[in-house]
Amino acid sequence: MRAAVFHGPHDIRAEQVEDPHPIEPTDAIVRVVAAGVCGSDLWTYRGQSSATPGARIGHEFVGVVEEVGTQVRTLRPGAWVIAPFRFSDGTCVYCQMGMESSCLHGGFWSREEVTGGQGEYVRVPYADGTLVEALPRGEAPDTRLVPSLLALCDVMGTGYHAARRAGVEPGSRVVVVGDGAVGQCAVLSASLLGAELVMVVGSRHEQRRELVGRMGATHAVPVRGDEAVEAVREQTAGLGADIVLECVGTPDAFASAVALTRDGGTIGYVGLPHGVELSLATLFPRNIAVTGGVAPVRHYIPGLLPKVLDGSVDPGAVFTDRLPLTDITTAYGLLDRRATVKPLIEMAA
Amino acid sequence: MRAAVFHGPHDIRAEQVEDPHPIEPTDAIVRVVAAGVCGSDLWTYRGQSSATPGARIGHEFVGVVEEVGTQVRTLRPGAWVIAPFRFSDGTCVYCQMGMESSCLHGGFWSREEVTGGQGEYVRVPYADGTLVEALPRGEAPDTRLVPSLLALCDVMGTGYHAARRAGVEPGSRVVVVGDGAVGQCAVLSASLLGAELVMVVGSRHEQRRELVGRMGATHAVPVRGDEAVEAVREQTAGLGADIVLECVGTPDAFASAVALTRDGGTIGYVGLPHGVELSLATLFPRNIAVTGGVAPVRHYIPGLLPKVLDGSVDPGAVFTDRLPLTDITTAYGLLDRRATVKPLIEMAA
Repeated sequence: MRAAVFHGPHDIRAEQVEDPHPIEPTDAIVRVVAAGVCGSDLWTYRGQSSATPGARIGHEFVGVVEEVGTQVRTLRPGAWVIAPFRFSDGTCVYCQMGMESSCLHGGFWSREEVTGGQGEYVRVPYADGTLVEALPRGEAPDTRLVPSLLALCDVMGTGYHAARRAGVEPGSRVVVVGDGAVGQCAVLSASLLGAELVMVVGSRHEQRRELVGRMGATHAVPVRGDEAVEAVREQTAGLGADIVLECVGTPDAFASAVALTRDGGTIGYVGLPHGVELSLATLFPRNIAVTGGVAPVRHYIPGLLPKVLDGSVDPGAVFTDRLPLTDITTAYGLLDRRATVKPLIEMAA
Repeated sequence: MRAAVFHGPHDIRAEQVEDPHPIEPTDAIVRVVAAGVCGSDLWTYRGQSSATPGARIGHEFVGVVEEVGTQVRTLRPGAWVIAPFRFSDGTCVYCQMGMESSCLHGGFWSREEVTGGQGEYVRVPYADGTLVEALPRGEAPDTRLVPSLLALCDVMGTGYHAARRAGVEPGSRVVVVGDGAVGQCAVLSASLLGAELVMVVGSRHEQRRELVGRMGATHAVPVRGDEAVEAVREQTAGLGADIVLECVGTPDAFASAVALTRDGGTIGYVGLPHGVELSLATLFPRNIAVTGGVAPVRHYIPGLLPKVLDGSVDPGAVFTDRLPLTDITTAYGLLDRRATVKPLIEMAA
């Protein structure tokens, strides 16, 4: 089979690799229909992760179960499934409390014996716990829904996690920092949860600013820093946002989030933090809460799936480009240059 | 009148000062019945605050309204009142949302023209917004209730804030870091809110460890660090606490709080932070939320007051020593040496 392989900074290619086979009796093999390239894959692409040449990559994929191990109980070959960006056993105490991101036996794709998601086939550990069947009885979804189903693997669940953990509810006044795919999904989630104001700041890129409008943003402004604070205060009776969803992960983005939150408000962060240090002395007098983290997207898929299937939410709009696996190098280049919001990789049928 | 005055490190004395008079028409003058000495006053006592010689001190007091300005509407001379540790107008947008600690016109006692609470009389700004009358129609409470009413000025509302903001609810498994007066009240609050486990760690002082038991702790251990983590895991199926209430404010205490919290759990902090920097990269993979800050105790007094009046909660137990104002120097010394949990200063009748 073919899969994306990391060879070094700015060198990720599709090439022939060994087919995966079940190792554990709880494994399944999934034939991938579509895979996503994630902003977090760029850390590897740019040589800023611990990946060594030859490493597999990718953690967002949907597809069809091809083969199941002897202890897989709920899935059969032919099942059309969604894989969250982390596998999980579905049975441990954390999985039971909806914190699959902390599964005691779970882990990330593309580590050790677990293959990456950007390839024609993937070995899935704990298939019963990990995978969610999109439709009952082995039906395949309408192909137009594939991007939105793929968005459930990571970005939609991640944006939704920010909004849920931060307590977005009807009437909330929400600001989103970041207009990448996760930021877009945070906008969609805040809107879905009934926020009255959903404002995106620092959105300088026209394509992305237009997209946040389609996702439900009530306001989107290109300004950052003090100008962004000013713009948010204009919309919030001078106070700042009840909730800020931080979807970037840099110190600058976090400093903005703090400045944009009203006293007693909450920051929900899901941008993988790089070098962000919070001074409690800054938060203390203003009672700003900080919540979020790596999203248990597996937990959210069953709740969001019906809304995707009936078309009422369309997170797939974040996939602004579609390319075949053979063009994976191009896909990374586009994302690296911010020339796409997010690329969808189509596998050959 | 007499009041406590700061003269320099380890030199706080009761001495003759000018009587306060109303300055604004919304002021009241309160004749103090009892005042508290707070752990945070020790920063001044030790010369670690910006206070200059001659500064007044104290921010916890209960007493009787002596005089009201022309625009005071709800209080009359003779009203027996509780003062929160910060004054607030009761009308601004933050006061209306229960965030009196962020009142747009509020402030702390012992700053500029606002007198300190450790004195025979205090000028109270925004008397209608700031003060809470303990009983209707000018009645005076039973003197045995005075310590608990005094605890509502700061420590009880502060401990309660930690528990409320962190979401303690029936069945929560809670660990409290800190066995000072605020930690004691956090224990009482967690118990009041129905926590199933209320465990205090690092409680090495026998008097304090005995007191946390009276406050409702189900477990109290003297150990800290890794031993504390081990002790908490033994009580929480190996996971850690759902909620940790951090009532100290030092980097060590906060590091403990992080280590003691289970994935997906919440730290409620109310210890005034001194040099605490949080690395988000530590919290992110574990989805630990951090909430709390300076407590809007004014908001909590009306809800807690009936429970104090009917004797069902007794936060006044934190006042392990009573001294007259003339012994204020002794009171500070006792607290500084941890020879008291908290001193109550009685004014001459």
